[in-house]
Amino acid sequence: MMNIYKISVPEIFFGRGSLKYAGVTARRLGAEKILFVSDSGLEKTGWLDLIFEILERENLQWVKFTTVVPNPRDLDIEEGARLYRQEGCDVVMSLGGGSPMDTAKGIALLASNGGCIRDYEGANRIQRPLPPMIFLPSTAGGGSDISQFAIITDAKRNIKMSIISRTLVPNISIVDPIFLMTNSEGLIITSAIDALAHAIESYVSLLASPLTEVRSLKAIDLILKHLPLALKYRQLDDLENLAIASTSAAIAFSNASLGMEHAIAHSLGGMLDVVHGLIHPILLAPVMRYNLPVCVNKIAKFGKIILGKRLRTDESTARAGIEKLEEFCASLNVTTRLRDIVSDRETLPLVCQMAMYDSCLLTNPRPATWEQMLQICEEVW
Amino acid sequence: MMNIYKISVPEIFFGRGSLKYAGVTARRLGAEKILFVSDSGLEKTGWLDLIFEILERENLQWVKFTTVVPNPRDLDIEEGARLYRQEGCDVVMSLGGGSPMDTAKGIALLASNGGCIRDYEGANRIQRPLPPMIFLPSTAGGGSDISQFAIITDAKRNIKMSIISRTLVPNISIVDPIFLMTNSEGLIITSAIDALAHAIESYVSLLASPLTEVRSLKAIDLILKHLPLALKYRQLDDLENLAIASTSAAIAFSNASLGMEHAIAHSLGGMLDVVHGLIHPILLAPVMRYNLPVCVNKIAKFGKIILGKRLRTDESTARAGIEKLEEFCASLNVTTRLRDIVSDRETLPLVCQMAMYDSCLLTNPRPATWEQMLQICEEVW
Repeated sequence: MMNIYKISVPEIFFGRGSLKYAGVTARRLGAEKILFVSDSGLEKTGWLDLIFEILERENLQWVKFTTVVPNPRDLDIEEGARLYRQEGCDVVMSLGGGSPMDTAKGIALLASNGGCIRDYEGANRIQRPLPPMIFLPSTAGGGSDISQFAIITDAKRNIKMSIISRTLVPNISIVDPIFLMTNSEGLIITSAIDALAHAIESYVSLLASPLTEVRSLKAIDLILKHLPLALKYRQLDDLENLAIASTSAAIAFSNASLGMEHAIAHSLGGMLDVVHGLIHPILLAPVMRYNLPVCVNKIAKFGKIILGKRLRTDESTARAGIEKLEEFCASLNVTTRLRDIVSDRETLPLVCQMAMYDSCLLTNPRPATWEQMLQICEEVW
Repeated sequence: MMNIYKISVPEIFFGRGSLKYAGVTARRLGAEKILFVSDSGLEKTGWLDLIFEILERENLQWVKFTTVVPNPRDLDIEEGARLYRQEGCDVVMSLGGGSPMDTAKGIALLASNGGCIRDYEGANRIQRPLPPMIFLPSTAGGGSDISQFAIITDAKRNIKMSIISRTLVPNISIVDPIFLMTNSEGLIITSAIDALAHAIESYVSLLASPLTEVRSLKAIDLILKHLPLALKYRQLDDLENLAIASTSAAIAFSNASLGMEHAIAHSLGGMLDVVHGLIHPILLAPVMRYNLPVCVNKIAKFGKIILGKRLRTDESTARAGIEKLEEFCASLNVTTRLRDIVSDRETLPLVCQMAMYDSCLLTNPRPATWEQMLQICEEVW
């Protein structure tokens, strides 16, 4: 017996040089004046000037909003929405990783629906359509350019709110791997591991469907193959394959949602401002081990990909696969212990209690109490 | 070196019982009065009444247009467009196989862009947006509910025109496998083989990309597994898997296009009114053999799926795979000789000459002259 699945994917322009479509697509969506959301780091790369030239060629106007910070907060977004209205913008465009893109989504939401971000926390709370959105991901990981998700921190409560709605899927995603050439090694790693976490969690999610599962598996395969090569040689070919992986994983998680690992990661990010991509190398494997009893066949499929073969049983393939994932994470230049990114061990119980309210936990294949999540966090302290 | 790929997919509601969303989605798209396109065969099944009840619950009005014929012609479509305007409709909805859905696309096109269908023949010729379209496929094959294609016969010239544009992707596709329960055995077979042809041709297409290839392969696997079971037991589970396959194949071919086999099939359909789904069991294998020299590795991947294993070389795996496909087609209750569906052998040269103008030929992996296509047709006469 199957459920009803709803699949929503933006129009995608994919490939090197596809950024040239930023102008014509905006024009096609009726743009006159664009609110352009990015961050100061990206401004320094020169990409913004290149995009503005493309917009100029279409006689488009734009206003910049580039004061975006990591783990964006609702207050910053309200400021962006004021700017959007005040300047009479009609389209939101964003070049960025997750933070600028989620900020852009929040701005589009408030500009059209009013109120404050907190009003829309959770699934399917947005009533009115958003202004057209065109996103250009500058990293291969977050997938906000594809997904129904926006993750925004409530500055008062210090928690990350998951806002989930099909209206948060941008109209157009322009995935140009050329942007990845200016990513630091650290950013390539944390982004790719974020995409890997999306692929794994969406694959075992309670909402996984045949239309998302192939995407998850493809992403896993590509990341395991191309991340080491991308780090070693910095060639566009491998970076492009990471972009394909990230896009595939995003199509999967946008429509199948995620699981416990992301619930804890959101809680850590909201309460302690921990960088999202640093959390997965630590928590991904132990969460898979926790989920193993209820989805051993699926984790065995993951194992078959990462091991390159099937062992004698599903159980042994799955367990060996998780171990191999730990080796893979350890081989990257990132920590695999929670103590290195969280200053105060005493905060962990509250972190896990708050994670209970995260929407991602609803689709984790195995139910969990906050104490069980705490035990996982303690194991990897 | 990769090209730029543009991927466009409608919002999809998938699963048994998903037809219940016909009303709320139409409402969400601003519908007041719907032009409902279907055919007389489907009217007899009772499905239309069920859908009208769902529309009524949302206080929606509708006008029926059910005089659709197989291989729909531009003249019929002009009539539908007149009805749409005259009745002041604002959304086009269709329940059908390829013919009603392509008719619905043509009506939406003329109602919003004016002129006649021939003005839009080829790729990317549509300038203005179309009215919202919601499609409910009643077969698992054609994929018009997903695709950028509309295939419409020019009644004067007796040729099938391929109209290809991203604006022809419906807003919403509601894929409810329950509709397949009233399909005849013949319709299940020809639809599934059409989807198989979509999967195979899109996989070897010059426009195939990593975002379409996984979809093609998944569809091939599902059809080979579930078509025999669906025919034997008529269980909803197998039919549902054929619907997943058809949807996957449609996502692939909509964005990667097709090849020579469809070019010939369109020509046969336009000139001689041959039923589309009956052509593939005859032409698919010989066209694959023709393409083999330029894509042996890809056809070997197909071979690995259909054989369940890889042979010693790519070449032998590919050749054995094509032979196995011929066995598969022969095991179904359909002809594998062209003479059984074409009355006059003398028309074949003209059929192949006309096929040269079909857009699908542009993406065939190996170039072809009309004489080469004729040779293929003669081989399977």
